[in-house]
Amino acid sequence: MPGVPKEMKTMFTRDILPKLRQQGAETGQIILSKTLHTFGLGESAVAEKIPDLMRRDRNPSVGTTVSNGYVSLRINAYYNSREEAAEQLAKTEQQARVALGDLIWGEENDTLQQVIARLLSDHPLARQWAPAVCTAESCTGGLVAKMLTDVPGSSTYFRQGYITYNNEAKQDLLNVSAATLKTYGAVSEQTVREMAIGAATQSGAPFALAISGIAGPGGGSAEKPVGTVCIALASPRNDNAPQLDVSARTFLFPGDREMIRDRSAKTALTMLRFHLLGKPLPF
Amino acid sequence: MPGVPKEMKTMFTRDILPKLRQQGAETGQIILSKTLHTFGLGESAVAEKIPDLMRRDRNPSVGTTVSNGYVSLRINAYYNSREEAAEQLAKTEQQARVALGDLIWGEENDTLQQVIARLLSDHPLARQWAPAVCTAESCTGGLVAKMLTDVPGSSTYFRQGYITYNNEAKQDLLNVSAATLKTYGAVSEQTVREMAIGAATQSGAPFALAISGIAGPGGGSAEKPVGTVCIALASPRNDNAPQLDVSARTFLFPGDREMIRDRSAKTALTMLRFHLLGKPLPF
Repeated sequence: MPGVPKEMKTMFTRDILPKLRQQGAETGQIILSKTLHTFGLGESAVAEKIPDLMRRDRNPSVGTTVSNGYVSLRINAYYNSREEAAEQLAKTEQQARVALGDLIWGEENDTLQQVIARLLSDHPLARQWAPAVCTAESCTGGLVAKMLTDVPGSSTYFRQGYITYNNEAKQDLLNVSAATLKTYGAVSEQTVREMAIGAATQSGAPFALAISGIAGPGGGSAEKPVGTVCIALASPRNDNAPQLDVSARTFLFPGDREMIRDRSAKTALTMLRFHLLGKPLPF
Repeated sequence: MPGVPKEMKTMFTRDILPKLRQQGAETGQIILSKTLHTFGLGESAVAEKIPDLMRRDRNPSVGTTVSNGYVSLRINAYYNSREEAAEQLAKTEQQARVALGDLIWGEENDTLQQVIARLLSDHPLARQWAPAVCTAESCTGGLVAKMLTDVPGSSTYFRQGYITYNNEAKQDLLNVSAATLKTYGAVSEQTVREMAIGAATQSGAPFALAISGIAGPGGGSAEKPVGTVCIALASPRNDNAPQLDVSARTFLFPGDREMIRDRSAKTALTMLRFHLLGKPLPF
């Protein structure tokens, strides 16, 4: 097929798909598929959680693909009847969901951004203080806010964000203390905690995501190599008071600058997602 | 060739390129190429500026491709000697550069972000007030700041950015006046002017890019349809004083939400680029 996506899609839909369907009808074989998306674990770590499903001779078959940091499962069920294919597909999907739990954030054409948007729109605390989320970003330079606003209607949950790329900006905009920056450095859990609290306090939004890290290629050290990224999440302590809890984590992401920034933003969104689900981060 | 990029590249470099080179050597034909990148005009508008170069029977040949909103020229020179190919390629490139001027922002593997970074690093006013640039974004949600910080070392020119997604945030963070928002609306040249001045004043950075627009799919009106985007650039009035000039423009971008946000961010960076070049925006 031609490489131009528009031509390829037209040709596939118009010419190839009907022939495949006809072929399937002639041989009596039905193929049903389902794709599930995960984030947080590498491809092999995901596969290790579902060894039985990944067996080569299995039907429905389960394979993994990686795209933009997401590890996706592709389940294909090959049977002679549509009913049996659907039933076996659903059974395998259920087994995958049991084994992987909330590592699975969506299916088919879902985006992580849409899933976060739905969670924020449905969550009682997020609705109570809408727009509930703000951001404070250093190394990601606005990418978390950009992803939060990828979804139409994001103004219902997103109000404002800060990009504080140097120490002075972190102090001026987010009230990060000079002592914290001096003692622990800009890339530290202490600093991102203060960034998150500052962003939440300044904006009035009870949920705040803060990121500071070393995206590289320069700036790394033995103690904090390139890829070291600290992420904090501030959240309301309870239903009635605007008191904040803050959790912070340090990650070491592989890859180049673009990949480190991308993984950082998606990990921040995933921390928010698990918080809204009321569950601990499983990685 | 296989679709997996890594396999495709390996196979092309290892197997196909040597054969093509050998074929070229046997027929005595040399092909030299050059790619130039533009932004701001559509593919046909670019082609109309270089009708002679685009003639089908021309050698060197000139073709256009579009990727991510950038219209690129691909010049191919087919000659029997490397010297002649190089000479004719350079001549055609020069003709294209004369016809298109600073619409051409880079060549080959350049990125617009790198070009902006180089301009900011070289510009006397930007150096004097480094880090010189700040951002105030509404509909792009952080994308301009993200692009400015795509480049390693961006802390030399970028200090901080604001994402003000609703009216309250524009007032609180950037001192946009309630009267302006009420009279002209959030998507207006008046509002983005005040956003740019607010960002520059708050941050101390003399260059500020501000964007407010309707990325859709909802929110459009007859007067301001989806795709309407206002962009302002604040810049230092002269070498000695931190007084600001502000220019603002309204654009109507085609496409979906993602495309509108992408074009908005690239147009903002392009407004900054032409300002740093000391030239008017040619579109």
